[in-house]
Amino acid sequence: MINQPELNTLSKNDKIDHFLLIRKIELRSTRSGSDFLATELGDKTASINANIWEGFVELAARGKVGDVVKVTGTIEEYQGANQIRVSSIRLAQEKDGVNPNDFLPVSKRNPDEMRKEFNQKLKSISEKHLKKLLPNIFNEERFEKFCLVPAGKSWHHGYIHGLLEHTLEIIKICELMCDFHPELNRDLLISGAMLHDLGKIEELRYDSAFEYTDKGKLVGHIVIASNIVRDEIKKIPDFPAELENNLIHLILSHQGKLEHASPVVPKTAEAIALYQADELSAKVNAYKGAIEAELKPDSNWTKFIHLADTDLHKFSLMENKEEKSKKSLFD
Amino acid sequence: MINQPELNTLSKNDKIDHFLLIRKIELRSTRSGSDFLATELGDKTASINANIWEGFVELAARGKVGDVVKVTGTIEEYQGANQIRVSSIRLAQEKDGVNPNDFLPVSKRNPDEMRKEFNQKLKSISEKHLKKLLPNIFNEERFEKFCLVPAGKSWHHGYIHGLLEHTLEIIKICELMCDFHPELNRDLLISGAMLHDLGKIEELRYDSAFEYTDKGKLVGHIVIASNIVRDEIKKIPDFPAELENNLIHLILSHQGKLEHASPVVPKTAEAIALYQADELSAKVNAYKGAIEAELKPDSNWTKFIHLADTDLHKFSLMENKEEKSKKSLFD
Amino acid sequence: MINQPELNTLSKNDKIDHFLLIRKIELRSTRSGSDFLATELGDKTASINANIWEGFVELAARGKVGDVVKVTGTIEEYQGANQIRVSSIRLAQEKDGVNPNDFLPVSKRNPDEMRKEFNQKLKSISEKHLKKLLPNIFNEERFEKFCLVPAGKSWHHGYIHGLLEHTLEIIKICELMCDFHPELNRDLLISGAMLHDLGKIEELRYDSAFEYTDKGKLVGHIVIASNIVRDEIKKIPDFPAELENNLIHLILSHQGKLEHASPVVPKTAEAIALYQADELSAKVNAYKGAIEAELKPDSNWTKFIHLADTDLHKFSLMENKEEKSKKSLFD
Amino acid sequence: MINQPELNTLSKNDKIDHFLLIRKIELRSTRSGSDFLATELGDKTASINANIWEGFVELAARGKVGDVVKVTGTIEEYQGANQIRVSSIRLAQEKDGVNPNDFLPVSKRNPDEMRKEFNQKLKSISEKHLKKLLPNIFNEERFEKFCLVPAGKSWHHGYIHGLLEHTLEIIKICELMCDFHPELNRDLLISGAMLHDLGKIEELRYDSAFEYTDKGKLVGHIVIASNIVRDEIKKIPDFPAELENNLIHLILSHQGKLEHASPVVPKTAEAIALYQADELSAKVNAYKGAIEAELKPDSNWTKFIHLADTDLHKFSLMENKEEKSKKSLFD
Amino acid sequence: MINQPELNTLSKNDKIDHFLLIRKIELRSTRSGSDFLATELGDKTASINANIWEGFVELAARGKVGDVVKVTGTIEEYQGANQIRVSSIRLAQEKDGVNPNDFLPVSKRNPDEMRKEFNQKLKSISEKHLKKLLPNIFNEERFEKFCLVPAGKSWHHGYIHGLLEHTLEIIKICELMCDFHPELNRDLLISGAMLHDLGKIEELRYDSAFEYTDKGKLVGHIVIASNIVRDEIKKIPDFPAELENNLIHLILSHQGKLEHASPVVPKTAEAIALYQADELSAKVNAYKGAIEAELKPDSNWTKFIHLADTDLHKFSLMENKEEKSKKSLFD
Amino acid sequence: MINQPELNTLSKNDKIDHFLLIRKIELRSTRSGSDFLATELGDKTASINANIWEGFVELAARGKVGDVVKVTGTIEEYQGANQIRVSSIRLAQEKDGVNPNDFLPVSKRNPDEMRKEFNQKLKSISEKHLKKLLPNIFNEERFEKFCLVPAGKSWHHGYIHGLLEHTLEIIKICELMCDFHPELNRDLLISGAMLHDLGKIEELRYDSAFEYTDKGKLVGHIVIASNIVRDEIKKIPDFPAELENNLIHLILSHQGKLEHASPVVPKTAEAIALYQADELSAKVNAYKGAIEAELKPDSNWTKFIHLADTDLHKFSLMENKEEKSKKSLFD
Repeated sequence: MINQPELNTLSKNDKIDHFLLIRKIELRSTRSGSDFLATELGDKTASINANIWEGFVELAARGKVGDVVKVTGTIEEYQGANQIRVSSIRLAQEKDGVNPNDFLPVSKRNPDEMRKEFNQKLKSISEKHLKKLLPNIFNEERFEKFCLVPAGKSWHHGYIHGLLEHTLEIIKICELMCDFHPELNRDLLISGAMLHDLGKIEELRYDSAFEYTDKGKLVGHIVIASNIVRDEIKKIPDFPAELENNLIHLILSHQGKLEHASPVVPKTAEAIALYQADELSAKVNAYKGAIEAELKPDSNWTKFIHLADTDLHKFSLMENKEEKSKKSLFD
Repeated sequence: MINQPELNTLSKNDKIDHFLLIRKIELRSTRSGSDFLATELGDKTASINANIWEGFVELAARGKVGDVVKVTGTIEEYQGANQIRVSSIRLAQEKDGVNPNDFLPVSKRNPDEMRKEFNQKLKSISEKHLKKLLPNIFNEERFEKFCLVPAGKSWHHGYIHGLLEHTLEIIKICELMCDFHPELNRDLLISGAMLHDLGKIEELRYDSAFEYTDKGKLVGHIVIASNIVRDEIKKIPDFPAELENNLIHLILSHQGKLEHASPVVPKTAEAIALYQADELSAKVNAYKGAIEAELKPDSNWTKFIHLADTDLHKFSLMENKEEKSKKSLFD
Repeated sequence: MINQPELNTLSKNDKIDHFLLIRKIELRSTRSGSDFLATELGDKTASINANIWEGFVELAARGKVGDVVKVTGTIEEYQGANQIRVSSIRLAQEKDGVNPNDFLPVSKRNPDEMRKEFNQKLKSISEKHLKKLLPNIFNEERFEKFCLVPAGKSWHHGYIHGLLEHTLEIIKICELMCDFHPELNRDLLISGAMLHDLGKIEELRYDSAFEYTDKGKLVGHIVIASNIVRDEIKKIPDFPAELENNLIHLILSHQGKLEHASPVVPKTAEAIALYQADELSAKVNAYKGAIEAELKPDSNWTKFIHLADTDLHKFSLMENKEEKSKKSLFD
Repeated sequence: MINQPELNTLSKNDKIDHFLLIRKIELRSTRSGSDFLATELGDKTASINANIWEGFVELAARGKVGDVVKVTGTIEEYQGANQIRVSSIRLAQEKDGVNPNDFLPVSKRNPDEMRKEFNQKLKSISEKHLKKLLPNIFNEERFEKFCLVPAGKSWHHGYIHGLLEHTLEIIKICELMCDFHPELNRDLLISGAMLHDLGKIEELRYDSAFEYTDKGKLVGHIVIASNIVRDEIKKIPDFPAELENNLIHLILSHQGKLEHASPVVPKTAEAIALYQADELSAKVNAYKGAIEAELKPDSNWTKFIHLADTDLHKFSLMENKEEKSKKSLFD
Repeated sequence: MINQPELNTLSKNDKIDHFLLIRKIELRSTRSGSDFLATELGDKTASINANIWEGFVELAARGKVGDVVKVTGTIEEYQGANQIRVSSIRLAQEKDGVNPNDFLPVSKRNPDEMRKEFNQKLKSISEKHLKKLLPNIFNEERFEKFCLVPAGKSWHHGYIHGLLEHTLEIIKICELMCDFHPELNRDLLISGAMLHDLGKIEELRYDSAFEYTDKGKLVGHIVIASNIVRDEIKKIPDFPAELENNLIHLILSHQGKLEHASPVVPKTAEAIALYQADELSAKVNAYKGAIEAELKPDSNWTKFIHLADTDLHKFSLMENKEEKSKKSLFD
Repeated sequence: MINQPELNTLSKNDKIDHFLLIRKIELRSTRSGSDFLATELGDKTASINANIWEGFVELAARGKVGDVVKVTGTIEEYQGANQIRVSSIRLAQEKDGVNPNDFLPVSKRNPDEMRKEFNQKLKSISEKHLKKLLPNIFNEERFEKFCLVPAGKSWHHGYIHGLLEHTLEIIKICELMCDFHPELNRDLLISGAMLHDLGKIEELRYDSAFEYTDKGKLVGHIVIASNIVRDEIKKIPDFPAELENNLIHLILSHQGKLEHASPVVPKTAEAIALYQADELSAKVNAYKGAIEAELKPDSNWTKFIHLADTDLHKFSLMENKEEKSKKSLFD
């Protein structure tokens, strides 16, 4: 792992001597005819623009989105945003020992802890068919992907390990609902929670940037997840049809409404619990993230957030701040 | 096949000596305490109510929806609708040689002709993977079901052979679109047309009444069709992933809008063609059927039709009616 | 408290010797001219129709919705539903010692336990202004009402103590969200959870039937709750304006969308958490209740449920049913 | 009051020697590295851009939105819009005797006349409780604010005295409706008209620019108005609950639909009259304003107006223009 | 004109000796086999059911909706609503001198006064082309119809002279808007107000019942009005195209939104004024009418009113009722 | 006709010596004060920007959108798009013999063939009134316009002869539907297909650019078409009212939904067929065009297409490409 100050800690006039990931790269020319290379560079904490005015021939020819560059220069401000005034820039080489993955945004939670937690939940399933099915689905290859993939491109849990973090939240919310309602079938519901977004491992690319795959756009993660589960169910003899239909129903209906791309709406108590737990986990994560990232300077309001259809407010009043032990992002 | 006047040709005071299908059956009692058996009976052309006031003990105990009965009596009118005044009624027996299937509404087109036509279309596919795939999908067992199942419970093509009739219409509309637009991939589009509603064979029961199955309600015909196609694709080595994604996309997107239960919207020229061809075939069949079935007496307007969100009008003016050779339902 | 078999345990031919609550009462006459008294009677577990054909003069003159009657007779079936064949009926008298409240549907959870739990949550608030405010709001008079009122007429938690049960669920869900997100202001969020539906105590009547009050229809529980909270805030000197605005915002925005009658949408992380926690608690309770109450005979499907816009399914497959220790409503 | 030509009367090459209000101010640098100060300056009739290339150090450090500057220069055209080529610029000083308020857009109607008119309407209320209530609400402090505040940021009546002008229009429309329908309760309806938008005095800042306050965004003018009215009602002994509920209902429902942020829809004849009168006054003012401000050059069509979801047309044909005595903005 | 007590003044046990209009007529039979004639009869104030058990042969054969009958009998109550217990009934004869028109609901305003008022408004138009056009449109034949036709089947101004009453209200509202906004073209706007609903004279039948014509359903009153106006414009030489387009635009856009069947949305200041004036006149009339007609017994709330999507409330508190001189429908 | 390489065949560094149409023209100045003339020039295949830095005085004064210029220069790239570096430019003169019409986008189908085809369809109508009506409507003057006008500004068939091409497609689709459904009135349906968009000839200008006319915006093509047809019907004695209403109904309802600006929804079998045929023809043409024009470089996905509310995908897999005889735009 590289050792360099994180981008979101730097400000005007700070020096840059960093490896950074190329997020956008484009050759442009000014109206007066000079060419320059316009790039967006980033680490896991932030993104920043850099225009390169000379010595960019090789980089322009060989560099592409997802590559890492070594760049030196200074932070300066342009039209209210930071950018890098570049002194030198080159593509990273093998001997630099850097990995594009290290520059992607990443969950704040410890991934090993989360994997362990997930495995415990997996073992808590007692119904005999599901007990056989789930480890087959979460085989080594799929589990690796499942633990890395973000839950989305950017809106909620849009970072490495995001799906794992999101899934664990939903599992715990569903367990609480089972405490309130013993009538819910716990094994079915928790299995559904584990599997509901599994299709994201084929819907998204997350190696150097988060993008939809062709399959993701043409088929979508809901049907992809349903396919994976069905393939594994067919390998288990005598898997009950009713259990299969109900488990697939949880996956298909988990976005809650047809207009949110679920081909069926929730029709069981377990399905409505899963949908609403998903909403709760997703929305709170998304709003918190937007408030962290988009506050206007000297204001406790963000710019207008389209997915929330409003601007958002950070509540900052707090009695006895000094006594508050947990560090809070909003304070 | 039984030989008896069709129900939709009978009127008040006509004699009944018919085999009819039980569509509803319920034991009721009047406010004054007498029990009677309330039934709805039908043949392929119509349904009619019959209340049985005596001698119904055995029928009440053993008869159920989908059984055939032998009934004698007279047509009488009650509150503006026909009903049967029953003289005698019994369950059909094996020696009667009647088949519940013979009492379901059925397409007006000749089924053998339609099967032949469909097989010709099947053979017209030339792309080598699709050429291998389609006959496997339409194997004998599935083809039998495909040729029988209605396209829906009642709104459009809601009769035996309805899906086959509907699919043939769509194929021909799509062929016309390929004439207009040579850029469309004909093999892909026609394959999609053939497969788009195949899931109905597991979504609907159509042996003695048209009802959704549990799987139909929990999973839905769109994902069922996608599953069948995917199972058969996996048996073909080297089936191109791009072709698979595009074919599955046609099935998933064929209802055109998320709120109509498609988990993805049409994203290719072939997908938009299939969706609009489906709409055209379905809506014209549905409106024609509603105009035939729901005209108010002495009026060229139907009652209010909820799925059309309006009442419908039969245009009846016609020059030289006597010279018109084709028999028209609307004249 | 009266001691009599609960209505939902009785079936055809069982004897009735019960105190029951009048839910509907109407004098009717048959087409042939005889008068009778049509009533709907109930206890806390169910409702049942009873038509009274004689000796109803006094009852017709004095009885009204919300009164208790003593009735004897037998259960019989009419058009697929139970009704009482009445032998005798009279209004309850003072010496009978019955209370209409005892016949309303009631939470299955122990109310004293829930009150205790709520009071513990109340004491867990540490911010000094809220710590002063909340006990004033939940003074003895309001707390009595708060502990009795249903959370709604019928859709979710529509029974005595329903609001208390619902509020406790939301508090626990919100506490879980605070575990996930230390950035959330716990004191603000839990206070909002406690207060969000407080306006129901003036929006609904729940003495003998659940009905909206005039104030409930003209003003609505959202603004009523905001008024109560504001009245108490004004009594506390130096209550911070920012805290007031944020607390009122939680109440006003808790239905999440303008079209659901919130005059502002959620604009803080706490507000979105409260809205989604409310949805989760409400929907799971509502779907479970509908599945319990509306299953069609011999089916694991309910009739069409309008508020869910679908029919609902009871998942009944269960391995080792005999070993399942918790009694389940769905098994 | 300052004496200088109004901005909307000036055109290319005219000299500027004006006090103007800062509406936007931002330090920028060109791609080649020169810094400049980008500002938007305005008086009550229009806004205009001015980029300042030198001598802006003090202004950049101390100037902020809502301040007044003294500027000299010339009007020039850039990309189809006017801008100021600045010769000199400085912040206004106390001795200049200018008031930011004088630079805000302002109603064309005489404010003293409107205040007088409003007071007459106030005196016309005869119901004894309302007669006591209204003067308390419109006490000196609130009345001052009520007479200044705009009815909105920009869409309709978005200028100083705008709420007063808008309220008077609604009162007159409601009086006309009372002429048509003597069944309407005039005192209730006119009181509702006076109070419906009173919350704007706390929802908006209008000292140097029109912006939403924190309270405006978190609580909203509808609930704020309801709070003010309720506070004053509580000071009047024996104010009838029914009258209070109906008056509050008028305020809460005056935006007509839940999705327009009213927490209840209009449920009385008075409430529907108030809502529709508000719409009529607001929409005609807004469309007229948009047609005045947004006509494309040499065209009788405006650019696309988002709030109207169409472009708008100025009808200009007029017979005998010279005889038309009333001056018309559209001719 | 007949002289008999109006239906809405009668109650249980009152004698009936009336001419009444047939609104519905249907031959039915009871479950036990007796035939009877089910009718709905009415005068201009109300409708009432009457079942005729004997002596109805001739009436059943010759009577139809829109005919007048002479009926004697008594008012009785059945299931909470009044009906007539019929002693004798016969079709009205020529010598009875009754006119079906006299039994239709009718405006409370004096028709001659309204005609006079409309003619004054007509004369107030001064633009020379419109001055020529309007009298041609409102020629004797069309004016007769215009003065009789209701503005709708039932929702607002749904009575004889209703369109005239509605149009006069809109004209006055528009005149008030012209007072506020001298920029509005008064002649254009008032002409549009006069013509906007003229198509109703061909859209509706109103001779004995209010029903849509075939043309009304297939073409609609908006296009019909546009056609009539266009026919008359073509007879005037040199009618300016711009004036024609703007006048037609007022008619086409007067329902304000595409989804309300206007083929274009309002794009001029005059068009938005006309739309909002129409809404104001229509909604207040409709709500008032619904509150008058649909109040539940012993309640100040109506049943649920579908077109308002809520139940409605009658505000009844009134100080010094005895002093109130104008008779109010709501008191 | 001019003879020069088409714009869409040129790339960087190619020489320009072309007549081109002015699509936009605007005098601008740089921030540093130099004036230049910004233009968009085009032929029938593409559009390209050209900024002119000197010698543009006469052109700036006299040139306007829709004029043709003679320009020499070179293609260069700026910010990822081509533009012309202009050497010389002048307005075309009479002796150049160029026609602005030759520079508009144009159908790929042969116009003479399409005219012939349309005339054959016209002759196939046999009903005697329609047989008389249609040639009068398509008289020489209107037919010329009908054969030139595009079917829209840009979304579908947005090119010269576009309406003719679109109309022929719909006619053929409708004929196919008549084959499926002999109950459809073929003469009525085909006449409706021919006339449905005729109003476009007055709604759009298409001489040098495609723009809406004032009449197009204020009245709209639906009512314009209905007017033309009605004018011609009135010249034919005894044209049946029912036929007129049904024909006008086809025109008015052909956009299928009120919110798509049809003032009535389809109420006949013919009307629903026409609406769905129109959708099919329009959508497939529009999607194909968007895929052709908007593919991202090195991708088989377009940018986001707003009217489709998605990005679009080009399916490119094709077996045996070399054998495919028809040239395909997508391969």
